Amino acid sequence: MVTTATHQSVIHFSRGVPPLEAIPTRELADHAIAAVREVPGAMFQYAPLGQYQGDPALREEIASFHGFEANQIFVSNGALQVLDLLASHLLRNGNHNVYVEAPTYDRAVQIFQRHGGQVRGIPMEEDGIDLNALAKYCLTCSPAFVYTIPDFQNPSGITMSEAKRQAFVSLASRFHFTIIEDIPYRELRYRGVSPPLIAKTPAGVSDIARVITVGSLTKILSPGLRVGYAVSDPETSRQLATLAEGTYLSPSPLCQAIAARCMKASVVHANIERVRQLLKPRHDHAVTAARRLLGNALLSVPDGGYFLSAHLRVHTDEATFVAAAKKEGLVLTRGSAFYPPSSAPPAGTLFLRLPFQALDPEDFALGLERLVAIADGK
Amino acid sequence: MVTTATHQSVIHFSRGVPPLEAIPTRELADHAIAAVREVPGAMFQYAPLGQYQGDPALREEIASFHGFEANQIFVSNGALQVLDLLASHLLRNGNHNVYVEAPTYDRAVQIFQRHGGQVRGIPMEEDGIDLNALAKYCLTCSPAFVYTIPDFQNPSGITMSEAKRQAFVSLASRFHFTIIEDIPYRELRYRGVSPPLIAKTPAGVSDIARVITVGSLTKILSPGLRVGYAVSDPETSRQLATLAEGTYLSPSPLCQAIAARCMKASVVHANIERVRQLLKPRHDHAVTAARRLLGNALLSVPDGGYFLSAHLRVHTDEATFVAAAKKEGLVLTRGSAFYPPSSAPPAGTLFLRLPFQALDPEDFALGLERLVAIADGK
Repeated sequence: MVTTATHQSVIHFSRGVPPLEAIPTRELADHAIAAVREVPGAMFQYAPLGQYQGDPALREEIASFHGFEANQIFVSNGALQVLDLLASHLLRNGNHNVYVEAPTYDRAVQIFQRHGGQVRGIPMEEDGIDLNALAKYCLTCSPAFVYTIPDFQNPSGITMSEAKRQAFVSLASRFHFTIIEDIPYRELRYRGVSPPLIAKTPAGVSDIARVITVGSLTKILSPGLRVGYAVSDPETSRQLATLAEGTYLSPSPLCQAIAARCMKASVVHANIERVRQLLKPRHDHAVTAARRLLGNALLSVPDGGYFLSAHLRVHTDEATFVAAAKKEGLVLTRGSAFYPPSSAPPAGTLFLRLPFQALDPEDFALGLERLVAIADGK
Repeated sequence: MVTTATHQSVIHFSRGVPPLEAIPTRELADHAIAAVREVPGAMFQYAPLGQYQGDPALREEIASFHGFEANQIFVSNGALQVLDLLASHLLRNGNHNVYVEAPTYDRAVQIFQRHGGQVRGIPMEEDGIDLNALAKYCLTCSPAFVYTIPDFQNPSGITMSEAKRQAFVSLASRFHFTIIEDIPYRELRYRGVSPPLIAKTPAGVSDIARVITVGSLTKILSPGLRVGYAVSDPETSRQLATLAEGTYLSPSPLCQAIAARCMKASVVHANIERVRQLLKPRHDHAVTAARRLLGNALLSVPDGGYFLSAHLRVHTDEATFVAAAKKEGLVLTRGSAFYPPSSAPPAGTLFLRLPFQALDPEDFALGLERLVAIADGK
């Protein structure tokens, strides 16, 4: 539901949650009912032995969606759980160096750290991670992996250019590190054409073992199904399945079956179109308002996803600013949480993530006005 | 389905999987359909903020089932995932010593080791873990936790006596360790009366922070729902929820809702009765056959659960024995896998887990006859 605010009401620039109208609940319910009616035994028993990589029908659908092979697909309880297993897998051999974008998804950083990762933030440029900075750090200390969200990044909104994707994989080959590309927002493009997946750039295809793609049905079908996946070389996929089997056995057969049926019946494709049409006007108005009110403070002008972001010049510290905003009816996420160790927003600025996906355009603009007024000390 | 074997066909003494007729698939399907029809939005959206401890309705039902409070319940993707989070939680403070029963559930040991646990096996007696041996090791080195399966243990079938449960908690208080009691088979009692949960013995109740109970709906409702839980002090429960949020956010709202509705509608209570009636004859015949054919080699004569077990005197090594059994149409799990580090079956014997829950009584007896014949070298 779009929240409509009055001048008195609270505006949330906080969670990146899909609006309920972006979830095809009727179709999901229909396919859930069909699954439990047609194969109740399979839905409520253990997954069969040998299916710890995921429901075969779902793996076929995901493979076909992205143009990979089913033996490259590993399905888990959401993309976060995939990252947890990947961290365990990739950090087991003693190299604990992990490089990530700065800013980046805070929960991913916490997972890498919990698995012993020594995480360093690499600055972002308008077209993605700063490869010169990354190369410099690789010369000192090559990482076990580099984590990127190349499309409409959470939290910045930045998309990595095609040229940079190519150069990124070349760097990975040169310094023998793995790239994890996390693509939850990729399909939510409101204009223009997507650059290829990093795994699908010519350099990526020729060195496929270097790139692991992490995807999710959360933003294009349903968060509640908890279906995330990794696309990798088949051997890595099998190893992730073994690790999953030793952690939680398998995801729920029912949730996987609902997902597979929705993909097969083109519910996902149709819903992607629907979500694009739903969010495009919110995006377009948000961009217009942000250009007008934030100008050069914007980190990027994305063509999709959920987020705009800014480095806002302020005269105070973050805690004071967030508290002042709250008083003015503006709920903010603390932007410093998105900056991993060894990184920070430019001096004198605060980083702000501005989710537009669940806001009425007028409310978004009103929120920005409040934001600027507080920054100006008005 | 009960597998009926001829003299030529293969008998499986291997997996501890519920037979399909022990799963109330019709009722599960009905409640799944009701859930997606009545509240489709809630089923397919993220779990609400603040529900990372689990679906409140399900936590109420689980609490009431065992006689605890809802704020003590943490729900996860199956009991194995609960053990994974518990290991992470309990081993974070530097004491990596873990004591377990020998034999014990092999997947639990692997989880503890993956979290850095130094696992030692403590011998089992007919009435549960050898507390004198445990106390001796505690004097040298107190563990972070001791893991037990007190009812119809997997793999031995042994149940811990009430007196030993009391003494066990006293030992835990004296040496400041946590007890994890894992109770997947507890409700499947075919005769007699259950001793109290370790957490419910007077000593356990007076020192509740020392005992964490891990439960699962797999053997009494459905493996496919992947619903497991921990019962602990409320603070531990909150900490597990925080860890879960950082690992996979939440379990699927749909699977949790189906479980809650089935518990509320007494499907679980009715199914426990049904499973007892279904498995009691298999159990009784299996016990009779095992007494006749294995005699003193039996580790215990359980009153419930899925498993008998034996220390079988053999003239060969395990790999040779298992291969010979396979030639004779008998599939065995390698019993040594159930023995954690620093433990082994008595010299000259092999440990054998003998699951009876999915076998026709005649086939079970036939399997035992084949087993004895191979051991005797006939």
